[in-house]
Amino acid sequence: MSLIVAGTVAFDAIETPFGKTDKIIGGAATYISLASSYFTESPGIISVAGEDFPPAYIKLLNDHGISTEGLEIRPGEKSFFWSGKYNADLNFRDTLVTELNVIEGFKPEIPDSYQGSEFLMLGNLSPDVQISVIEQLQYRPKLIVLDTMNFWIENTPADLKRVISMVDVLTINDSEARELSGEYSLFKAAKKILTMGPAYLIIKKGENGALLFYEDKIFFAPALPLEDVFDPTGAGDSFAGGFIGYLASIGEVDFESMKYAIVIGSAMASFCVEKFGTENLVNLSKPGIYNRVQKFVNLVKFNAKEIL
Amino acid sequence: MSLIVAGTVAFDAIETPFGKTDKIIGGAATYISLASSYFTESPGIISVAGEDFPPAYIKLLNDHGISTEGLEIRPGEKSFFWSGKYNADLNFRDTLVTELNVIEGFKPEIPDSYQGSEFLMLGNLSPDVQISVIEQLQYRPKLIVLDTMNFWIENTPADLKRVISMVDVLTINDSEARELSGEYSLFKAAKKILTMGPAYLIIKKGENGALLFYEDKIFFAPALPLEDVFDPTGAGDSFAGGFIGYLASIGEVDFESMKYAIVIGSAMASFCVEKFGTENLVNLSKPGIYNRVQKFVNLVKFNAKEIL
Repeated sequence: MSLIVAGTVAFDAIETPFGKTDKIIGGAATYISLASSYFTESPGIISVAGEDFPPAYIKLLNDHGISTEGLEIRPGEKSFFWSGKYNADLNFRDTLVTELNVIEGFKPEIPDSYQGSEFLMLGNLSPDVQISVIEQLQYRPKLIVLDTMNFWIENTPADLKRVISMVDVLTINDSEARELSGEYSLFKAAKKILTMGPAYLIIKKGENGALLFYEDKIFFAPALPLEDVFDPTGAGDSFAGGFIGYLASIGEVDFESMKYAIVIGSAMASFCVEKFGTENLVNLSKPGIYNRVQKFVNLVKFNAKEIL
Repeated sequence: MSLIVAGTVAFDAIETPFGKTDKIIGGAATYISLASSYFTESPGIISVAGEDFPPAYIKLLNDHGISTEGLEIRPGEKSFFWSGKYNADLNFRDTLVTELNVIEGFKPEIPDSYQGSEFLMLGNLSPDVQISVIEQLQYRPKLIVLDTMNFWIENTPADLKRVISMVDVLTINDSEARELSGEYSLFKAAKKILTMGPAYLIIKKGENGALLFYEDKIFFAPALPLEDVFDPTGAGDSFAGGFIGYLASIGEVDFESMKYAIVIGSAMASFCVEKFGTENLVNLSKPGIYNRVQKFVNLVKFNAKEIL
């Protein structure tokens, strides 16, 4: 196994100005593993679900080559459920319902078959669960990428700082970077966060692209202007999945490789938001992905000439 | 003369979280012509000021090679004055005072020495004044670039649409593009605006970069993450000045040249916001500009590789 993905699997019920869904499959591990599955062989997820979680959803993951050996199904319990409603321009969402259910007190266990993986993606989960995943690995992966959110910055800052100090890449959005660092300028925020442990920091700005900080270098990948955005749910996780899936496929972890990995992550996020939930993400073709990545390549291509 | 710049010259009094200024030199024509002066020989401005406008300010423009023959000084009248206060994150500003003074009823007159110019930049002014400038030119410039703002979209939509239909490039910010088109998606907004006349549309997104739309093509230029932003006043005009100044210097008006021109415009805007008013813009060096442009070039440079 080249890649382990830890995170939630969940039921989501989503409402946007363009429609609403019943309970559909969601969760960080779902989006990350699906997006990564187009690049790397058999990523394996670490997660937990209740007995209400449909076998068809597990089959969907398996059909994409994703191992669910590390997905614990807890009899007599219910799966994590989240319901949210987006505002008119999709930039804000209200959480309507959060039922933690099986997520509460989740103690991850790493199957033996997952040991030796060179890439680890820690999707949004409580920091102590993320730490437990790292500590159970007999071999330290070549690259550990961590995602988190404002909830953990506010509620478990000590645990969060500990897991941040253990990883190679931290990926958070702009408002979270500001909250974590106490700096409004993203330049200053990045400088501060890079002293907390990770060698690399990715700041996601949604429809305004993503920044990669490493030492004193900065790389920027734009988002593609899309005709229609239907549902932003899972965009950040699809980004992370494309990013680490590509790196796992080439086995490289240097700054240059990460630049292109961010472009690929951005392309995967652009697919995700064009339909509800995982609808687009489960049906991609390799030529379709290639063409989308080319659009990102062309978007920022220009010839620098002599000036002055 | 290669470039005519029409727009306001003004007194600005600016307050940001980092300090406040007394009345300093401002106005669209001031920022545009200063930024363009680093690229093109003797741009000439079309504007109007009152007798309170200090000769030192005119000398400042002349010292940058800017012709002020088209700057009318009206005896017994006062210059345009604007005062504004920015919020904590500099994303919004309240206008505290707007005294139109000489701007009201301004009838521009084009000096003979300006005739035959190949580039025309119409900075923010009322659309009927912008139209009057175009109609007084004996020779249709190779490139006409138009800037405007929400005030004209709301108050003189018919005149604004007429001037939009007469130009080659329209440059507006994202909220203005949405207001002008009635579309939230910038992709759809751009499609609609390109049917109004201009072959090219630039949508400025401030700290989130700028988009160039042409036929079915899109180019994106990022903004550089800056350590400190002191004062956003004049950023859009500095962008426009760098953009058209560079094009005037090479004499090209095709899509490929415009891409690099937008990168240069973005670099000039980045200088502008690092200090108050025109403070940074009046003191640039050619190597300093070159180095800044290189940072923009490197910011988005990556090697696209085979995937999948």
